[in-house]
Amino acid sequence: MQENDGFRPLDRQECLRLLTKVPVGRVVYTRQALPTVLPVNFSLDTDSSVLLCTSAASDLVRAIDGAVVAFEVDEFDAVDRSGWSVIVTGRATVVTDPAEHARLTRTGPRPWAATHDGIFVRIEPEILTGRQLAGGRTLYGVDAS
Amino acid sequence: MQENDGFRPLDRQECLRLLTKVPVGRVVYTRQALPTVLPVNFSLDTDSSVLLCTSAASDLVRAIDGAVVAFEVDEFDAVDRSGWSVIVTGRATVVTDPAEHARLTRTGPRPWAATHDGIFVRIEPEILTGRQLAGGRTLYGVDAS
Repeated sequence: MQENDGFRPLDRQECLRLLTKVPVGRVVYTRQALPTVLPVNFSLDTDSSVLLCTSAASDLVRAIDGAVVAFEVDEFDAVDRSGWSVIVTGRATVVTDPAEHARLTRTGPRPWAATHDGIFVRIEPEILTGRQLAGGRTLYGVDAS
Repeated sequence: MQENDGFRPLDRQECLRLLTKVPVGRVVYTRQALPTVLPVNFSLDTDSSVLLCTSAASDLVRAIDGAVVAFEVDEFDAVDRSGWSVIVTGRATVVTDPAEHARLTRTGPRPWAATHDGIFVRIEPEILTGRQLAGGRTLYGVDAS
């Protein structure tokens, strides 16, 4: 990232703090050879991995289990032209261990309504990047990373 | 999409209407063989294509010019557990025609601050999909499409 592009890179601790600020993020993956994205609610586990809860029969699970995906959260203010975004990149895996599933049933994300076949998917934070845009004077929409 | 998954599919007109409601969307693409995403401000052109304005020298332009990308917008309410998302999938191309560039300089998206080498990128709406989640009774986080 260029130093004068208006974006300030965020360090790991700032990224992790911001990941707890919003309830919904976006899983970015490949489906039928095309890039695609799905917004989902999520939580952070104690090892900083991203946890989703979804249907075992979903297209999402079939597409991402075992694959490297990106998970993005952001927040922007159009009036101030300010905001931030954080991207977690890492392998997504379905949680299959019964004890781990039981733990996450107590402490993990809850879907926004009940599902009969909910499973947890973990995204490892292998790469964690973020950037913040200060308002007003800076350029938004330029990727100079 | 299953009819009972809590999501209502949106028709083309609803998708286009919602695309005008938010100033920032997310370009989803592949960089160095990994899925990635970049939030950008945008506008809709008169032919319903998505227009971005970014730096000619940016990584984004190098990665997406000529490639099929997804462009996503959404809005969610964590209290109501309601919201919607719209995804445009299509080829991204840098606008090179001088007359078209001049027109977009007048009518297209403006970056959130000045750039010295701004160019426009057009994403064709080859596939336009959207879905809406009603609040309360429905499941969020399940992709049953």
